[in-house]
Amino acid sequence: MLIKYKDMIKEIKKEMRGGKGEVTITNIAMKDNLIHARLMAYINIPAGASIGEHQHVKEIEYYIILKGMGVVTEDGVEMKVKEKDVVITGGGSTHSIINNGNEELEMIAVIILE
Amino acid sequence: MLIKYKDMIKEIKKEMRGGKGEVTITNIAMKDNLIHARLMAYINIPAGASIGEHQHVKEIEYYIILKGMGVVTEDGVEMKVKEKDVVITGGGSTHSIINNGNEELEMIAVIILE
Repeated sequence: MLIKYKDMIKEIKKEMRGGKGEVTITNIAMKDNLIHARLMAYINIPAGASIGEHQHVKEIEYYIILKGMGVVTEDGVEMKVKEKDVVITGGGSTHSIINNGNEELEMIAVIILE
Repeated sequence: MLIKYKDMIKEIKKEMRGGKGEVTITNIAMKDNLIHARLMAYINIPAGASIGEHQHVKEIEYYIILKGMGVVTEDGVEMKVKEKDVVITGGGSTHSIINNGNEELEMIAVIILE
Protein backbone atom coordinates (compact mmCIF):
# COMPACT_ATOMS: atom_id res chain seq x y z
CA MET A 1 0.00 0.00 0.00
CA LEU A 2 1.41 3.38 -1.06
CA ILE A 3 0.60 6.39 1.11
CA LYS A 4 1.51 9.76 -0.40
CA TYR A 5 2.61 12.48 2.05
CA LYS A 6 -0.21 14.79 0.93
CA ASP A 7 -2.80 12.14 1.88
CA MET A 8 -1.50 11.56 5.42
CA ILE A 9 -3.70 12.83 8.23
CA LYS A 10 -2.25 15.92 9.87
CA GLU A 11 -2.92 17.18 13.39
CA ILE A 12 -1.79 20.47 14.88
CA LYS A 13 -1.01 20.28 18.59
CA LYS A 14 -0.85 23.50 20.57
CA GLU A 15 1.48 23.51 23.57
CA MET A 16 1.97 19.75 23.18
CA ARG A 17 2.69 18.04 26.51
CA GLY A 18 3.03 21.51 28.01
CA GLY A 19 5.54 22.66 25.40
CA LYS A 20 5.65 25.95 23.50
CA GLY A 21 4.06 26.89 20.19
CA GLU A 22 2.43 24.58 17.66
CA VAL A 23 3.72 21.21 16.56
CA THR A 24 2.41 19.40 13.46
CA ILE A 25 1.95 15.63 13.48
CA THR A 26 1.63 13.96 10.07
CA ASN A 27 0.57 10.35 10.52
CA ILE A 28 2.61 7.88 8.44
CA ALA A 29 0.32 5.07 9.60
CA MET A 30 -2.95 5.14 11.51
CA LYS A 31 -4.48 2.47 13.74
CA ASP A 32 -5.51 0.16 10.86
CA ASN A 33 -1.91 -0.10 9.67
CA LEU A 34 -0.12 -0.34 13.02
CA ILE A 35 0.58 -3.42 15.11
CA HIS A 36 2.14 -3.23 18.60
CA ALA A 37 2.50 0.49 17.97
CA ARG A 38 0.46 3.57 18.72
CA LEU A 39 2.28 6.21 16.69
CA MET A 40 4.34 6.43 13.53
CA ALA A 41 4.47 10.01 12.32
CA TYR A 42 6.45 12.90 10.96
CA ILE A 43 6.63 15.63 13.62
CA ASN A 44 7.47 19.19 12.60
CA ILE A 45 8.59 21.60 15.30
CA PRO A 46 9.06 25.25 14.25
CA ALA A 47 12.00 27.26 15.58
CA GLY A 48 11.34 28.11 19.22
CA ALA A 49 8.62 25.48 19.69
CA SER A 50 8.83 22.37 21.86
CA ILE A 51 7.17 19.20 23.13
CA GLY A 52 7.10 19.28 26.92
CA GLU A 53 8.41 16.64 29.29
CA HIS A 54 6.43 13.39 29.35
CA GLN A 55 7.02 9.81 30.47
CA HIS A 56 7.00 6.52 28.53
CA VAL A 57 5.83 3.58 30.64
CA LYS A 58 5.44 0.12 29.06
CA GLU A 59 6.35 1.51 25.66
CA ILE A 60 9.40 2.76 23.80
CA GLU A 61 9.62 5.89 21.67
CA TYR A 62 12.12 6.61 18.92
CA TYR A 63 12.84 10.15 17.74
CA ILE A 64 14.61 9.99 14.38
CA ILE A 65 15.83 13.49 13.49
CA LEU A 66 15.44 14.24 9.78
CA LYS A 67 16.44 17.91 9.63
CA GLY A 68 17.17 20.86 11.83
CA MET A 69 18.58 20.73 15.33
CA GLY A 70 17.39 20.86 18.90
CA VAL A 71 17.84 19.70 22.45
CA VAL A 72 16.31 16.55 23.93
CA THR A 73 16.19 16.35 27.71
CA GLU A 74 15.98 12.76 28.92
CA ASP A 75 15.62 12.16 32.66
CA GLY A 76 17.01 15.65 33.24
CA VAL A 77 20.06 15.25 30.98
CA GLU A 78 20.30 17.58 27.97
CA MET A 79 21.49 16.19 24.64
CA LYS A 80 22.00 18.20 21.44
CA VAL A 81 20.44 16.45 18.43
CA LYS A 82 20.78 16.97 14.71
CA GLU A 83 20.02 15.27 11.39
CA LYS A 84 20.16 11.45 11.50
CA ASP A 85 20.58 11.24 15.30
CA VAL A 86 18.15 8.96 17.11
CA VAL A 87 16.86 9.20 20.67
CA ILE A 88 15.36 6.06 22.25
CA THR A 89 13.29 6.51 25.42
CA GLY A 90 11.33 3.93 27.42
CA GLY A 91 11.21 2.04 30.71
CA GLY A 92 9.50 4.87 32.59
CA SER A 93 11.99 7.54 31.51
CA THR A 94 10.90 11.07 30.63
CA HIS A 95 11.89 13.23 27.70
CA SER A 96 11.15 16.54 26.05
CA ILE A 97 12.42 18.21 22.88
CA ILE A 98 12.92 21.86 22.02
CA ASN A 99 13.85 23.37 18.69
CA ASN A 100 16.37 25.99 19.73
CA GLY A 101 17.67 26.48 16.20
CA ASN A 102 16.68 28.94 13.49
CA GLU A 103 15.06 26.49 11.09
CA GLU A 104 12.30 23.91 11.41
CA LEU A 105 13.13 20.64 13.13
CA GLU A 106 11.60 17.60 11.43
CA MET A 107 11.68 14.12 12.91
CA ILE A 108 9.93 10.78 12.73
CA ALA A 109 8.47 9.49 15.99
CA VAL A 110 7.60 5.83 16.50
CA ILE A 111 6.00 4.49 19.69
CA ILE A 112 5.96 0.71 20.15
CA LEU A 113 4.01 -0.79 23.06
CA GLU A 114 5.57 -3.46 25.28
CA MET B 1 19.61 7.24 24.98
CA LEU B 2 21.16 9.23 22.15
CA ILE B 3 22.58 7.31 19.20
CA LYS B 4 24.67 9.35 16.77
CA TYR B 5 24.52 8.34 13.10
CA LYS B 6 28.29 7.72 13.00
CA ASP B 7 27.99 5.16 15.81
CA MET B 8 25.22 3.10 14.19
CA ILE B 9 26.20 -0.35 12.96
CA LYS B 10 26.38 -0.48 9.17
CA GLU B 11 26.04 -3.57 6.97
CA ILE B 12 26.64 -3.76 3.24
CA LYS B 13 24.38 -6.23 1.46
CA LYS B 14 25.35 -7.41 -2.02
CA GLU B 15 22.49 -8.37 -4.32
CA MET B 16 20.07 -8.10 -1.39
CA ARG B 17 17.12 -10.45 -1.77
CA GLY B 18 18.33 -11.13 -5.30
CA GLY B 19 18.48 -7.44 -6.20
CA LYS B 20 21.23 -5.57 -8.04
CA GLY B 21 24.33 -3.85 -6.69
CA GLU B 22 25.12 -3.02 -3.06
CA VAL B 23 22.70 -1.68 -0.48
CA THR B 24 23.83 -0.17 2.84
CA ILE B 25 21.84 -0.83 6.02
CA THR B 26 22.54 1.52 8.94
CA ASN B 27 20.87 0.20 12.07
CA ILE B 28 18.93 2.84 14.01
CA ALA B 29 18.22 0.30 16.74
CA MET B 30 19.59 -3.19 17.30
CA LYS B 31 18.02 -6.12 19.15
CA ASP B 32 18.57 -4.68 22.64
CA ASN B 33 16.55 -1.58 21.78
CA LEU B 34 13.75 -3.16 19.75
CA ILE B 35 10.51 -4.66 20.99
CA HIS B 36 8.06 -6.46 18.68
CA ALA B 37 10.34 -5.41 15.83
CA ARG B 38 13.24 -6.97 13.97
CA LEU B 39 14.51 -4.02 11.94
CA MET B 40 14.67 -0.25 12.23
CA ALA B 41 17.28 1.10 9.85
CA TYR B 42 18.31 3.64 7.27
CA ILE B 43 18.67 1.91 3.91
CA ASN B 44 20.72 3.54 1.16
CA ILE B 45 20.26 2.29 -2.40
CA PRO B 46 22.62 3.74 -5.05
CA ALA B 47 21.30 4.67 -8.50
CA GLY B 48 20.64 1.46 -10.43
CA ALA B 49 20.65 -0.81 -7.36
CA SER B 50 17.69 -2.67 -5.92
CA ILE B 51 16.32 -4.97 -3.22
CA GLY B 52 14.74 -8.01 -4.87
CA GLU B 53 11.23 -9.32 -4.36
CA HIS B 54 10.53 -10.86 -0.96
CA GLN B 55 7.50 -11.72 1.15
CA HIS B 56 6.36 -10.50 4.58
CA VAL B 57 4.45 -13.14 6.52
CA LYS B 58 3.28 -12.43 10.10
CA GLU B 59 5.04 -9.07 10.05
CA ILE B 60 4.58 -5.65 8.51
CA GLU B 61 7.26 -3.55 6.85
CA TYR B 62 7.24 0.21 6.36
CA TYR B 63 9.43 1.90 3.75
CA ILE B 64 9.63 5.62 4.53
CA ILE B 65 11.34 7.36 1.61
CA LEU B 66 13.67 10.13 2.78
CA LYS B 67 15.30 11.20 -0.50
CA GLY B 68 15.63 10.18 -4.10
CA MET B 69 13.08 8.25 -6.10
CA GLY B 70 12.39 4.72 -7.23
CA VAL B 71 9.82 2.07 -8.01
CA VAL B 72 8.29 -0.30 -5.48
CA THR B 73 6.59 -3.38 -6.88
CA GLU B 74 4.02 -4.78 -4.47
CA ASP B 75 2.25 -8.02 -5.43
CA GLY B 76 3.19 -7.33 -9.04
CA VAL B 77 1.92 -3.74 -9.09
CA GLU B 78 4.49 -1.00 -9.77
CA MET B 79 4.32 2.23 -7.79
CA LYS B 80 6.59 5.24 -8.20
CA VAL B 81 7.89 6.54 -4.88
CA LYS B 82 9.61 9.74 -3.84
CA GLU B 83 10.56 11.74 -0.74
CA LYS B 84 8.11 11.37 2.17
CA ASP B 85 6.03 8.62 0.54
CA VAL B 86 5.46 5.51 2.63
CA VAL B 87 4.89 1.93 1.48
CA ILE B 88 3.31 -0.51 3.95
CA THR B 89 3.56 -4.22 3.16
CA GLY B 90 2.40 -7.24 5.20
CA GLY B 91 -0.10 -10.08 5.34
CA GLY B 92 1.93 -12.33 3.06
CA SER B 93 2.37 -9.74 0.31
CA THR B 94 5.60 -9.40 -1.63
CA HIS B 95 7.55 -6.27 -2.52
CA SER B 96 10.77 -5.11 -4.12
CA ILE B 97 12.33 -1.68 -4.63
CA ILE B 98 14.59 -0.36 -7.37
CA ASN B 99 16.35 2.96 -7.55
CA ASN B 100 15.81 3.90 -11.19
CA GLY B 101 16.78 7.53 -10.61
CA ASN B 102 20.12 9.29 -10.98
CA GLU B 103 20.77 9.99 -7.31
CA GLU B 104 20.89 7.83 -4.20
CA LEU B 105 17.60 6.67 -2.69
CA GLU B 106 17.54 6.83 1.09
CA MET B 107 14.74 5.38 3.18
CA ILE B 108 13.94 4.16 6.67
CA ALA B 109 12.70 0.58 6.94
CA VAL B 110 10.83 -0.67 10.00
CA ILE B 111 9.68 -4.29 10.39
CA ILE B 112 7.22 -5.03 13.20
CA LEU B 113 6.34 -8.65 14.03
CA GLU B 114 2.71 -9.68 14.48
